[in-house]
Formats: sequence, C-alpha cells, structure tokens
Amino acid sequence: MAERLIVVGADAAGMSAASQARRRRDHRDLQILAFERGVHTSYSACGIPYWIGGLVEDQDDLVARTPQQHRERDIDVRTGHTVTAIDLERRSVTANGESHHFDQLVIATGGEPVLPDWPGINGKGVHGVQTLDDGDAVSATLAERDARRAVVIGGGYIGVEMAEALIRKGLQVTLLERSPQPMTTLDPDMGELVAAMLEKFDIDVRTGVTVQGLELDDEGWARTVRTDAGEFAADIVVLGVGTRPRVELARAAGLPIGPSGGIVTDRRMRVPGHEGIWAAGDCVEVRHRVTDQPTAIPLGTHANKQGRVAGINIGGGYATFPGVVGTAVTKACDLEIARTGLQEKEAEKAGFAYVTAKIESHNIAGYYPGAETMTIKILAEKGTGRLLGAQIVGGSGAAKRIDVLAVALWNEMTVDEMTGLDLGYAPPFSPVWDPVLVAARAASDAVRK
Amino acid sequence: MAERLIVVGADAAGMSAASQARRRRDHRDLQILAFERGVHTSYSACGIPYWIGGLVEDQDDLVARTPQQHRERDIDVRTGHTVTAIDLERRSVTANGESHHFDQLVIATGGEPVLPDWPGINGKGVHGVQTLDDGDAVSATLAERDARRAVVIGGGYIGVEMAEALIRKGLQVTLLERSPQPMTTLDPDMGELVAAMLEKFDIDVRTGVTVQGLELDDEGWARTVRTDAGEFAADIVVLGVGTRPRVELARAAGLPIGPSGGIVTDRRMRVPGHEGIWAAGDCVEVRHRVTDQPTAIPLGTHANKQGRVAGINIGGGYATFPGVVGTAVTKACDLEIARTGLQEKEAEKAGFAYVTAKIESHNIAGYYPGAETMTIKILAEKGTGRLLGAQIVGGSGAAKRIDVLAVALWNEMTVDEMTGLDLGYAPPFSPVWDPVLVAARAASDAVRK
Repeated sequence: MAERLIVVGADAAGMSAASQARRRRDHRDLQILAFERGVHTSYSACGIPYWIGGLVEDQDDLVARTPQQHRERDIDVRTGHTVTAIDLERRSVTANGESHHFDQLVIATGGEPVLPDWPGINGKGVHGVQTLDDGDAVSATLAERDARRAVVIGGGYIGVEMAEALIRKGLQVTLLERSPQPMTTLDPDMGELVAAMLEKFDIDVRTGVTVQGLELDDEGWARTVRTDAGEFAADIVVLGVGTRPRVELARAAGLPIGPSGGIVTDRRMRVPGHEGIWAAGDCVEVRHRVTDQPTAIPLGTHANKQGRVAGINIGGGYATFPGVVGTAVTKACDLEIARTGLQEKEAEKAGFAYVTAKIESHNIAGYYPGAETMTIKILAEKGTGRLLGAQIVGGSGAAKRIDVLAVALWNEMTVDEMTGLDLGYAPPFSPVWDPVLVAARAASDAVRK
Repeated sequence: MAERLIVVGADAAGMSAASQARRRRDHRDLQILAFERGVHTSYSACGIPYWIGGLVEDQDDLVARTPQQHRERDIDVRTGHTVTAIDLERRSVTANGESHHFDQLVIATGGEPVLPDWPGINGKGVHGVQTLDDGDAVSATLAERDARRAVVIGGGYIGVEMAEALIRKGLQVTLLERSPQPMTTLDPDMGELVAAMLEKFDIDVRTGVTVQGLELDDEGWARTVRTDAGEFAADIVVLGVGTRPRVELARAAGLPIGPSGGIVTDRRMRVPGHEGIWAAGDCVEVRHRVTDQPTAIPLGTHANKQGRVAGINIGGGYATFPGVVGTAVTKACDLEIARTGLQEKEAEKAGFAYVTAKIESHNIAGYYPGAETMTIKILAEKGTGRLLGAQIVGGSGAAKRIDVLAVALWNEMTVDEMTGLDLGYAPPFSPVWDPVLVAARAASDAVRK
C-alpha cells in the first residue's frame, strides 16, 4: 500500500519537497497531499515589490507552478485549507476541521511578520508585503485611494525595495527607520551609502525615528503615522518589518524549537527524535557556518534548497543542507547591495576579534565605457586572518561579487590566501585587480598590522 | 650603500615588482633601474582591441602609469633600451651596449607571438596585437589603406576580440580558424555557441581552414590570404595567434626553463638556485592547481600578481604566488565567455576520468525585465565528484559567474558540496537557483549515475 506524505504549506520549501519526492517515487508508492491556507502555490515572494513597482507586468509571472500544474504531476494540492493541528501519536493533521493520516510529514509553514503593537496597525491601507495576496491588497489601496503619499516603516530589504517600487509608481515616499541608517544588515558606514542613494531618488529618509502609532480616519483608513519626530501624512502605509519562523503548529505538537525560534532539524531536514517528520523553509533554524550557531534566515533560496533536500531524502535518496554563511543581496534604486558572513556587531556577539578594511574600486576597467565604482568592506579574524564577512555597495556588477566571498567563507579561507585567487579578468568585466582582490589585499594588510 | 634592483621589461609584471619594492624600501636603501624596449610602460594590453574598435577613445587611457610617473616615484625607467645579455657571474646586464651592475634582478620579458612561417607573413598590413605599438600600426593601416575587408587569422581571445573591433569599425570581417570551431579554449560544443554569435554579427566565420600563405602586391602589402579552402581578399590581416614565454635572454644566461617553456620560479617568484634573481609575468611558468603540473598562461592578472609578489619579497616582506586554476573571460559581440579549470581535452591529458553536465538557465529571475540565458558546462571527476572545470557562454552576468567556480576549484570542492553554496539571490541578480547551483546539481547527478 502506498505511503502518504502530507505537506503543510505549499510554497517554495513545501512544494520543492513534494516535487523531489514525486520525481523519485510514483503515486503507487507515495501519495502526496499538500495543504495551503492561501490560493497560490510556488510563487516568488521576493518578486512582489517589482510587480507592485510595475517592473514585472503580471502577478502570474511570479508563480512558478500553479495548484493545477502540481495536480497534473500527481501532487494533490488543496488551497484554502488551514492546518490547525498535528497529532504525532495518531500521525494525522487536522485541516479545515477534517483529519488526515500521514506516514511522512513536511512542515513548511514559512515565516510570519513581527507586528508591533502600535495603535491603528490593523487599520485599512496598512500593508505588510509577505504574500501575493498582500501585493494585491497594496495595489487595491493605491487604486482605491488614488494614493499620493506613502510612508514605509522599516528600512530593511522589503522596506527599501517597496520605497523604490512606490517612487516608481509616482508617489511621494517617506521611509522611517529606527536606527541611525537604513539596511541594518550592513554596518553603519555601509548603510550610509544606501541612505545617500535613496535620497538621491527623492525618497525622504528619516532615521533614528521611533513610530508610536497610526491615526485612522472615520472610515478606518490610516491617515497619519505618529512618531517621536513628528507626524507623517499617508495615503498608504507599508510595513517593512521583519519576520520570524511561524512555528505555533509545530510547538503545539511538541516538536523541538531552537534558540533562534525555528524548528530544529538535522542536516537531512528531519526533526530529530521524530521519525518521518521533516521541516524546511522559513520556519526552521539552520547552522551558520561562520558562528557555528543556529540561526533563522528567511530567504527563498534556502527554502528551495531545504525543500529539495527533504524531498530527496523522503524519495529514498541522500542529500543534506550544510548550513548558510549569511549571504543576501538586493537592489535599491541604482545601487546594488550585498553582504555575506558577519557584520561587525555579529562578529562581536560571536566572540571574534577582528580587523576591517574598506576599499573603493571600479567594477570594470576604468577606461571601459560605463565603468562605475563599488565599495567593499571586509572583516577578518585578528591573528589568523580568516575571512569573517563582507559587504558590498555599488554600481553594476557589485552585488553578485559577494558570491566569490561567500564561497571563500564557506571554505574558511584567509584574506591572505584570497589575494591569490584566480578570478576572471577582461576589461569589460573587471579591472586587472578585481575589486574583491583589492579588498582582500587591504584586509591582509590590516591583519598584519 | 644602496642595493641596485634591475628590472628587464617595464610592463605589468616588471613595474608591479618595482612599485612594491619601492613602497617598502626608499632610494637610499634600494636603487631601481628598469629597462623597456618599447616606449610605453604599465599599460593594459588586453584593452587594445577596445581601443582599436573605438570603445576606448584614447590610447593614453590604456596606460596606467607613464615612464615619467614612475620616475617621480624614484624608479629610473629607461625606454628604448633593449637588454641583450644577463651575466650571472658578474651580476650585470647589457642594455643598448652598456653594462649595468645589479644586486637583485627581475626578469619580466613577457611573451612573444608564435608566428607561423607562412610566405608573406612579414608583409605590410599584417599585424599582431600584442603591444600598444601594434595597436598604432593597425590604426595606421586602417587609415592609410581605407581598409574595407579584414581577415583575422585565429579564433582565440585576441582573434575574436579583434574581429568584433573591426566589425565595429565598419569593415567586412572574415575569421579563419584551423579547428572545427573558434575559441578552442572551450570544448567544441561550447565553441559552437560562440561561432553562432559571431555569425549573427555578420562576421564570416570559416572553420577547419588551414592558412597556406599571404600574397603581397607590388608595394609589399598583403592582399590575399591563401588557404586550403580558397583565397580571401584583405586590406588588412590580423594575426590572432598564440604567444609563448619570451625566454631567450634567461636561457642564454643559463637560467632554468621548465617543460611548459617558461622560466622556473618558486612560490616567491625566485629563480631557484640563483640568489637575487626573480622572474614574473608571461615569461614564467606556474603551477596549475588542478593538474598539479607547470603551465604558462599569459594574462595580465597573473603578471600583476606575480610582479607584486616578487616586489614584496624584494622589499623585505613575504608573499607567495600559489598558482592558477586557468580562469579566463572575454566578450565576443553580445556574448560573454568564460572558463576555469580543465576543458575535456586537458582533463584527459592530465589523466582524470570525468563526467560532464551542461545546463541552460536564466541570468536573473525569468520574470524580471532583461532576463537572458546562459549555458554552463561542468566537468567533475568520476567517483570523487571533485570539480575539474567549467565553461560559461551567455548573456549579461554570465562571464563573472566563473569566479564562483574558480574559488570552488581553488578549494577542491566537489560538485555535490557545491549544490549547497550560499550564493546571493534577489530577482534583479539571479533566479532563486543560481545557474551555478543548477549546473552543480546536474553535475552531481551525473557523478552518481
């Protein structure tokens, strides 16, 4: 008789797991049932700001695979189904009030926004940007209110991307950030470069500002954001707030939750001590390869990898998820932004003593048409010179150079050894000393001092 | 009394050595004398095709530092000086007939074109493209002859770059290549993609063609290229031929020449057994980190690194050149081309048993404006799955992705481990599975088969 796999959450992680399991085991051997609260499956949440901003025309473009397409591959996806309980004893889940037996279970419940308890935060015209439905809601508000003034609260990835999207739509945009600079995943000196570019694009960046609440009009629409630095009028308010792993279901079932707040798994994405229970995506915690500590990093690329790993293992293969080094990239207006490894405050927290080096360099040969500059900052361990982290802010070709540093980090290279790396050189692509090598040289000098 | 450092050849390697030595030791401690046959110092030879093609306006833009600028930093550069002998016993060199004593010697004589003995090859209007002076000569011929038809012989880096440059100048261009496809530093299946793009740009690509000679007119100008596939009329002929280390001087002095034809050095760029004798740049051989064999790879980026290493050591510091992995990138018309590690014929020659995988993927999220495709081919060792090499041909963002593979090669990663790499993901920069990860997955599957 066929085993039954139940997947809770049918986005990147869940459906990667389902697809990989299906590739290895057919429906006579493995029945796959996936429950999804929303109406969409397998979509690119990271693409939502570009769709709202008009760079991506159609919402459908963001959907990699529809429920119907999954069904055609013998994966029974049930949208509009909310799983409310997992019973590990009986090996069943409850979805929309009905009980369903499982042999294997993949928990892929994703992340949830961390919403402050500001008065008015549930008002109309106040939007998070986590799901495709959120994107629909933003578009509806923009149209319904003929919105001209937007306030974006929070200057992280989503906040910065949404500020740009709304400027593209012709709105006046104010970005409110509690810290002294936006993009706090960068060190302050690098975040300042981002603030400068946002301001160049006429985004009104207000830093060091604490939001106190939102004032609603008689119809319940948010009209004003109240802060310790005054009030900001708004036709629409976007919450660029962080997320945390969505784990109530797992916690209630008695599954282990780690110190970072995510579900604990082993390298194969199994929940330890619970045969046949798997977890993947934004709801889990993973090993950070630089700190060697557990961490929760909500990113589509990790979710896809983890889901794939779970699915291969469920399918009878062998795969592992070996951890992360903390790589992230984004674009803010004309600026490319990237980081990997540890920023200064993270290195301190992890107990590393470190030196830093910061350089500016051309992205391509300085004499080649279209040359731009980028700034690279590197952290290296004092004494050993081990690379600990890097941040890049700059023009075209800046962001993906972080990958070189991410692979170096993965392999625990020293900045001194990195100065010898055999990176591609030709005038349309790089100066004869690639900026990464220039940064490694500066960091190597800093270590020797 | 000050020591004297003599540098033979004042381009990338030689002047990097001189500059680094000068940074660490001032003129009271170290006198530096550099001899250069030509009139230019420290220029980007790789930029010449872009200058001829008109993308780079001014020849001066290619010069990083003029002789005068070097002199201002207490480096006595003598252009128009040809060194004709090195006397290791007396520790002196002969330049323009005069003898000069040295304590330390850096040999940076570069590469020399491998010229076939075709009749007519020394005719007027027949040009190599190695030096700035060659570039001047090409421009002079184009102007003087009001050239309309160009024949480029050899479809390697220089040949392809020059074909594009001449098309940009409005010439009809025929590219003759002996092999079945251009870019033989790629495997044939990847080289075909390059041929297709060149043809799309109206370059007449003729492969499998052996040149027999050039016919000159009464004034000594080359007018026709004779081949086993017929005759090709030409107003200008460009030789995209290979180079080899220029080592007569070193060989005559009794210095060791290795199996690849380059001067032998240790990791600090010292010529072993000869105290105070250093060599760097296109004239040396280096360790290939994948084959573990000596190899000679003429590239500005290696020359700069090696010169820097020699200079730091001469200056009293410590630095090493730890070898290469065979990375090279170029652009042909709208196509980005890259390789690292071993291609199939090299892997065979080195005794590796290997599998290959080839994938096509988007450079950025498929739904993001301007998405293009790229093809990545990976070679991995049979059994162990160790990455052996990679080739990339494709649109924007294709070439520099080779750096990720170069760093993975450097660290002897397996393709299986590479599937977990934490590379940057955001829709403007990458699909959620970066093409490198897609290729690693395909290669990992191939290894397991």
